[in-house]
Amino acid sequence: MATTAVIRRGPPEQKVREKLHSAAARVFARKGYATATVREIVEMAGVTKPALYYYFGSKEGVYKAILETGFRDFETRANAVEKMKGRASIRLRRLCREVFALMQRHLDVVRLMHSFYYGPPQGAPFFDFDRALFRFHDMVGKIVRQGVRSGEFRGNPEAMTLAVLGACNECIDLELVHPEMAVDGAGFGRVIDVVLRGMERKDGR
Amino acid sequence: MATTAVIRRGPPEQKVREKLHSAAARVFARKGYATATVREIVEMAGVTKPALYYYFGSKEGVYKAILETGFRDFETRANAVEKMKGRASIRLRRLCREVFALMQRHLDVVRLMHSFYYGPPQGAPFFDFDRALFRFHDMVGKIVRQGVRSGEFRGNPEAMTLAVLGACNECIDLELVHPEMAVDGAGFGRVIDVVLRGMERKDGR
Repeated sequence: MATTAVIRRGPPEQKVREKLHSAAARVFARKGYATATVREIVEMAGVTKPALYYYFGSKEGVYKAILETGFRDFETRANAVEKMKGRASIRLRRLCREVFALMQRHLDVVRLMHSFYYGPPQGAPFFDFDRALFRFHDMVGKIVRQGVRSGEFRGNPEAMTLAVLGACNECIDLELVHPEMAVDGAGFGRVIDVVLRGMERKDGR
Repeated sequence: MATTAVIRRGPPEQKVREKLHSAAARVFARKGYATATVREIVEMAGVTKPALYYYFGSKEGVYKAILETGFRDFETRANAVEKMKGRASIRLRRLCREVFALMQRHLDVVRLMHSFYYGPPQGAPFFDFDRALFRFHDMVGKIVRQGVRSGEFRGNPEAMTLAVLGACNECIDLELVHPEMAVDGAGFGRVIDVVLRGMERKDGR
């Protein structure tokens, strides 16, 4: 009954869910999983506690939902790039730009992911962050090796893969740590191009 | 009197200090500043509490000492590279390899730095992590611009700077997050070389 009242009184259903979703992402990212409370999340979202329990069941539920949404979004984009044909450098640039844009949109999820990897244990429910990390790593590696086979790239595939991943992560980290120094999509494209230029086979060399 | 007893009974003075230092770095890096205790640190170091108070004064004292040692080491290496003459690409490669080697040796400090930037607030005493971050960023940027002026590099200096920093950070992150995939010094050199090749001016282009 309480939840019905919440829905009737408040903004349309989808909006409440979205508000809770982004408020929770912000609270978790700022305070960490352990010390974040349902009260803070609902206060930031401007809704009542029963709304959170209705849509997500619990603090754990909203945490998992945030991560799953971000990762599903990544999978969708990764799958789209995987279907592309053509030059490896174009597909690589496209993949990186998609991932950069995605991370810009899910900065709080990226921050949660970083705090999982680098921060102290938070008692948060298990989430397989490695799956996405490896998926991105493997996709970049695969396109790099295709480019080497087709004669488009030259060099050590592992080194080229890490250089590409480094360019992506550096620009995301800058956004997290020093947003005042962050680059936009065009700036990010220039960073990736430095690395791609270093991978391209030059005639006469 | 207690501290004197500790020193007399235990290993030589310098060794006790070093043991406490590295045990504390490990405990802070694993548990975060807030939940780490003096008891855990001394147990891991295999010494008694008074030894920690004698050498570092407090939990805060040992925390600061760890960070200051790491950053002093960085400053020493940065200053040495700054005095180098010659081609920008050689100085850049040298700087990056020095920083990579340094970070490999101070992995726990790097982990603390990451958890400061990405993790939840830990109530740790203030430490100016940005100083070293900016110093490295500025040094790379300066050598890149010198290389552009001398005609050695071609491209956007900011993009080239981020590509170089990305290569360094990627290899360090791999060591922190997936040590089984980490690269050694030679592997790191190959990653940096991909980026440097992308920065070099090619004749006829």
